[in-house]
Amino acid sequence: MEKEKGGQLKDFFPFWEKLTAAEMESICRSAAEMTYSRGSFIHKASEDCVGVILVQAGALRVYIQSEDGRDITLFRIEEGEACILSASCFMQEITFEILIDAEEDSRVTVIPTAVFKKLSDENIYVENFVYKQTTERFSDVMWTMQQILFMSFDRRLAVFLIDESAKTGKDTLTMTHDQIAKYTGSAREVVSRMLKYFENEDIVELGRGRVRLKDKKRLKELARQ
Amino acid sequence: MEKEKGGQLKDFFPFWEKLTAAEMESICRSAAEMTYSRGSFIHKASEDCVGVILVQAGALRVYIQSEDGRDITLFRIEEGEACILSASCFMQEITFEILIDAEEDSRVTVIPTAVFKKLSDENIYVENFVYKQTTERFSDVMWTMQQILFMSFDRRLAVFLIDESAKTGKDTLTMTHDQIAKYTGSAREVVSRMLKYFENEDIVELGRGRVRLKDKKRLKELARQ
Repeated sequence: MEKEKGGQLKDFFPFWEKLTAAEMESICRSAAEMTYSRGSFIHKASEDCVGVILVQAGALRVYIQSEDGRDITLFRIEEGEACILSASCFMQEITFEILIDAEEDSRVTVIPTAVFKKLSDENIYVENFVYKQTTERFSDVMWTMQQILFMSFDRRLAVFLIDESAKTGKDTLTMTHDQIAKYTGSAREVVSRMLKYFENEDIVELGRGRVRLKDKKRLKELARQ
Repeated sequence: MEKEKGGQLKDFFPFWEKLTAAEMESICRSAAEMTYSRGSFIHKASEDCVGVILVQAGALRVYIQSEDGRDITLFRIEEGEACILSASCFMQEITFEILIDAEEDSRVTVIPTAVFKKLSDENIYVENFVYKQTTERFSDVMWTMQQILFMSFDRRLAVFLIDESAKTGKDTLTMTHDQIAKYTGSAREVVSRMLKYFENEDIVELGRGRVRLKDKKRLKELARQ
């Protein structure tokens, strides 16, 4: 049983071969399986510090939140990926607060922060992995920020709709305006107004909680602007 | 001479004691002193990859730029600090493009990218330093982004004016609206409009290339909103 868990864990951690037997055991013994249903809240840095989360199935959403409750999605953590930022309380270089939700029904493995901190303190290869992973997320965040800060919203929304359609393989997206606002870092009213404009232009067709892409050619032109 | 340079370099690099004699020598021998006058352009990732920059005197400004030439200042690198992102081309985890200017007349030491990459490949302590530093910058960027995305602009401008006044120890800031726009990540027109509003409210007094803070109490109230 423990051996089996270790086999899975190994796939998430490139430093596995650099661990001592005792270190491997401390990870395997402390690893806990958890499930989160879609939409449930997983982590807020200032309130707890869940630990390193390994996504076995499903997907998580990492975001920041303004004081008045506005969300900006920074990136997603997909199946097979590890999330270090959910244990960021042990990294003194991280001074910002992120939140994590389950974007889909998700099955994860959690390594408690205390266990991972000890490993990272004692084994430079573990520490190295932590900061490399974080640097990758830095790049994800910079991409998102440039989208938000530099693109006009019609273009941004067009990019989002095309990306979602490519990801799901469908022309009809089942999402509310509120969800789209969260992912594009805007207000719901802004999204609704722009979708209405797209509808008037015959680019999309709107329904309750869904958006059908009618004119993908136009959308792609907008996205390239 | 080399010894002296090594002494200085040591202060920038916490990994110094973990280097072999040959590694120390490769840094010392390749280190070049450079000066940049205020406002001069230092680095653009896609065009060159200067190397690791150590700020001996002065300060650098790290920013991103939109296609239409709008700047957003991410953070500053002050005297005594090292900048790794100017050698980011060797870090495959970094996929975004940053630019660097001299914010003041600056004297720097540059370690060429190729030398630093070799060290980082061969010595895990150097690699560790690289990614830890980058994680610190990630935190700086998140702070900046939250200011831009979540604060209303009157508050943001008030925070900026108070911070600048505290930094320089003066009530009169010698900056153009264009410079303030760069630092606050907004358009010049937005800055001018808000400064005009502040002037009408008797909070500031505007002159050519300068802003005098008349009512710091009001500004601080705005900043706390």
